[in-house]
Amino acid sequence: MKTYALTDDDVQLVEEAKRKIAALYTEDRHHVGAALRTASGNIVSAVHIEVNVGRVTVCAKAIAIGSAISSGEKQFDTIVAVRHPYSDEENRALQVVSPCGMCRELISDYAPHCFIILPIDGALQKVQIHELIPFKYTRM
Amino acid sequence: MKTYALTDDDVQLVEEAKRKIAALYTEDRHHVGAALRTASGNIVSAVHIEVNVGRVTVCAKAIAIGSAISSGEKQFDTIVAVRHPYSDEENRALQVVSPCGMCRELISDYAPHCFIILPIDGALQKVQIHELIPFKYTRM
Amino acid sequence: MKTYALTDDDVQLVEEAKRKIAALYTEDRHHVGAALRTASGNIVSAVHIEVNVGRVTVCAKAIAIGSAISSGEKQFDTIVAVRHPYSDEENRALQVVSPCGMCRELISDYAPHCFIILPIDGALQKVQIHELIPFKYTRM
Amino acid sequence: MKTYALTDDDVQLVEEAKRKIAALYTEDRHHVGAALRTASGNIVSAVHIEVNVGRVTVCAKAIAIGSAISSGEKQFDTIVAVRHPYSDEENRALQVVSPCGMCRELISDYAPHCFIILPIDGALQKVQIHELIPFKYTRM
Repeated sequence: MKTYALTDDDVQLVEEAKRKIAALYTEDRHHVGAALRTASGNIVSAVHIEVNVGRVTVCAKAIAIGSAISSGEKQFDTIVAVRHPYSDEENRALQVVSPCGMCRELISDYAPHCFIILPIDGALQKVQIHELIPFKYTRM
Repeated sequence: MKTYALTDDDVQLVEEAKRKIAALYTEDRHHVGAALRTASGNIVSAVHIEVNVGRVTVCAKAIAIGSAISSGEKQFDTIVAVRHPYSDEENRALQVVSPCGMCRELISDYAPHCFIILPIDGALQKVQIHELIPFKYTRM
Repeated sequence: MKTYALTDDDVQLVEEAKRKIAALYTEDRHHVGAALRTASGNIVSAVHIEVNVGRVTVCAKAIAIGSAISSGEKQFDTIVAVRHPYSDEENRALQVVSPCGMCRELISDYAPHCFIILPIDGALQKVQIHELIPFKYTRM
Repeated sequence: MKTYALTDDDVQLVEEAKRKIAALYTEDRHHVGAALRTASGNIVSAVHIEVNVGRVTVCAKAIAIGSAISSGEKQFDTIVAVRHPYSDEENRALQVVSPCGMCRELISDYAPHCFIILPIDGALQKVQIHELIPFKYTRM
């Protein structure tokens, strides 16, 4: 898998995701934040929406992409999600997390060349979304 | 079921949902728009995000609520969704649609007194979300 | 809302849902069981499938309906779900639970006259699914 | 990515998935079938359940796994899904399809060493599920 080092803009994007979830963290409601940089350089950040019926929950990356599209954005460059610890976790660090399978589907549909920032072997790196969903489902 | 007549603000909210989906309609990607009025009077609008794997799709109301929460909003007053016809439908009118079962779960968790604008007997009316998901699932 | 008293067959259906989840309960994986009676009188029971990414979880009623359809069944008469307590809950009773909004959509599509057994005012009763999702979303 | 050739049992598994969806195909309701072989050699097959609100749909692989678990099975060896063409498609062949992102999450949680049969470069091959969801989301 081809990986890329983070740029200064990427480091700022991670910081924005952290800032967002630190500001809006709510137990059992919002514990993941995401930040998305569009091709035009705009940054859109969001938190995830936990629902009591877990199947109805929406991820932070999906809300960020939906918000950006709803503002007229169409081209996405890089996205990252950060997880805030629950109140009973010892490790209080905000941690960058890899995308779930649903977000991989969504991002690969809307931005097949988008970079995802994720931790690999303990360090933050970037990969393109298509590498994270090899042999993606299609109707052929 | 107790129903309420639309106020002038509600009529404007419907117009905003229509304006949003008319501006951003994209075949097979975005055909529903939603507009949400918060308790502070702000309006947040969004479109739905269709994904090739249909299970991954996110509704317009969910994106609107997620966007509003991500902006720091917490109290929601009224929400509405409008559906744009596909390119092959004869009826070209934008139509207010009732919420799906997933949006009923989400809205009733986050805003149990929120009003939903929907068509009843051919006319737009408002009902409170809890009326649309009677005997809601709880763990008791 | 029109409610119906449970028949002897309904009481047996509840028992089957309890038996199924009691037998297969697994912490963080399966804590809800469902039992479905088809129009031909067959009973199909199932447990829910919890996934670490909560959005991917599938409800017990959905698995029961999917299993029945995969066996060639098409007409469904009555369905019920029962929740097993987590290991740290004081109340150890198996409790009949109301359907979530997603199951309301699924059941009303596949069996619009199906009866749902649920607790109302502390007693088990039956209602038809369409009463639980009033003004259901349609494209009109 | 390490790939494996199909065994005779695998070829039979593909045939079972084809047989299931050929028997139960219903326009707009069931067009994907799946077959699962458990570690004990049992085969469980199922169809997918399309719901009008697409987000509520459940995949054939999820129904097959849920059915197997509901029968007391816990160890899964190999799984495959086959798509039936819609009535308006020219190509009438039943085609093996790759798993969606949601099924990748589910399978990797319940059977991290499970083999997936999928088409690679025009030929059916097997890979282990973890290869299809690299750097899977975890809470760490």
